Amino acid sequence: MDSKQCLQAHRDLIEAWLQHAFQEREPRGNLYDAMCYSLLAGGKRIRPVLLLESCRLCGGDPEQVLPFAGAIEMIHTYSLIHDDLPCMDDDDLRRGRPTNHKVYGEAMAVLAGDSLLTAAFEFMLEQRTQIPPERTLEAAGILARAAGARGMVGGQVLDMDGEGRTLGMNELEELQRLKTGALIQAAVEMGCVLAGGTVEQRAALCRYAEHLGLAFQIQDDVLDVVGKTETLGKTVGSDAKSEKNTFVTLKGVEACGELVSRLTAEAVDALAPFGEGAQALCWLANTLATREK
Amino acid sequence: MDSKQCLQAHRDLIEAWLQHAFQEREPRGNLYDAMCYSLLAGGKRIRPVLLLESCRLCGGDPEQVLPFAGAIEMIHTYSLIHDDLPCMDDDDLRRGRPTNHKVYGEAMAVLAGDSLLTAAFEFMLEQRTQIPPERTLEAAGILARAAGARGMVGGQVLDMDGEGRTLGMNELEELQRLKTGALIQAAVEMGCVLAGGTVEQRAALCRYAEHLGLAFQIQDDVLDVVGKTETLGKTVGSDAKSEKNTFVTLKGVEACGELVSRLTAEAVDALAPFGEGAQALCWLANTLATREK
Repeated sequence: MDSKQCLQAHRDLIEAWLQHAFQEREPRGNLYDAMCYSLLAGGKRIRPVLLLESCRLCGGDPEQVLPFAGAIEMIHTYSLIHDDLPCMDDDDLRRGRPTNHKVYGEAMAVLAGDSLLTAAFEFMLEQRTQIPPERTLEAAGILARAAGARGMVGGQVLDMDGEGRTLGMNELEELQRLKTGALIQAAVEMGCVLAGGTVEQRAALCRYAEHLGLAFQIQDDVLDVVGKTETLGKTVGSDAKSEKNTFVTLKGVEACGELVSRLTAEAVDALAPFGEGAQALCWLANTLATREK
Repeated sequence: MDSKQCLQAHRDLIEAWLQHAFQEREPRGNLYDAMCYSLLAGGKRIRPVLLLESCRLCGGDPEQVLPFAGAIEMIHTYSLIHDDLPCMDDDDLRRGRPTNHKVYGEAMAVLAGDSLLTAAFEFMLEQRTQIPPERTLEAAGILARAAGARGMVGGQVLDMDGEGRTLGMNELEELQRLKTGALIQAAVEMGCVLAGGTVEQRAALCRYAEHLGLAFQIQDDVLDVVGKTETLGKTVGSDAKSEKNTFVTLKGVEACGELVSRLTAEAVDALAPFGEGAQALCWLANTLATREK
């Protein structure tokens, strides 16, 4: 199996798991519809794929850690639903479809986000897996920390605070390290911890994720400017319009392209200790760096 | 120590713990201010007190389970912040002070709620306590389930769906069993599980909490009608104005008073297996039933 097939297998696993996650639950008004509308809207599933592949790389069984991979995607999805709200970024379109609150109304979008965040912990703590309790606790704790005020939500606040003024490169990197980087790093750490990986493996994966996360965000900013609306599924230039600070407004498209290449090379370098085994994660970094959507 | 002193001691413990919870965290814009504004606004602290006393009653040490008691109060607080949002109940006043979004703006109120919910799990999973990992997992899992789509948020959705039409008594009980009852029941179950209580103890505490939770909500509806704004700290009659379904609109004030008395007696009866040890929880049920705010 080559790298692409390996990651596609992870992606199929997580898609199937997410499809079934809420099927056994009794329907409660429109709530599950609203949750599933955003959760099952496709997307690249980068975070769960990173978790599953990091787990495999450290000697674990990806199928055993699916609730954790699903949980990180639920938290990513909830953050998108709340970010799109009228009082936040006020976006009408996400992945080429109307945003959650456009379909279900603002109140239901708030609650769908709240219950996806909560469901992430429900699934991780349900303990239907063979994972030892200590590892479950550590992995769920990593995700809680990465998602909260010292992670993703903290980054969102820095983003809001920065609107209307120009951030420096360090401020923008710190913002993105929290807003998008924290969950990406949590994904590889969780995979490693759940597999019982070593301290050295965890450190190498963290360095990889740190560079990958930044490269991913910079490429996102570039695509926002040069992409086509049809390809990207959101209004092109929407960041610039709302006076968001982006790497492109700070450095320009060309310098950003070079930065993405350099960061991707550093991400790949960080995996050297794993040797050949890390092929798929290297392939993923290179693929994300050259993506067009 | 009599019952009142015993519960006051729990309340002092939890107030002190909450006061210090975010003090070590680095400030991140206004986020921590917004979180603490609502978390440290007083309130009766019923859920954490129930957790601590259930823990003590089952042979555990309340001081060891403070992160769990704090977590349940954080989740209760996040639900109030989100419930008060303009797109939800649109309330300006809570506990006699302007609501979170009135002070910090809607976007920050959404994020303060999100990060309180996340912080609840951070604190429970940090594992700085002597609680065995299996018990930590079970207790945190109970809270996750009670807070989510099959619990509190599910109840909130039923509440929204019911607006503008008249619910039957069964529907209204189901709504409240989820919206307020789920967290109250989670509090006693978590206390019991963390203390290593027996299946019988857990069942008795659940019966107690079920009746207590319903009595509490009915009394809340009564106070909304007959209370004074100064005493209650929210606009009197606000439920009726927004065409909310309440026990008072369904049954009238007098019948509600009788219902509260009956449910409180049943709550007290449920604790019979504990004998004298359950004095404080009995006292709490009776005190809540006759409260005027």
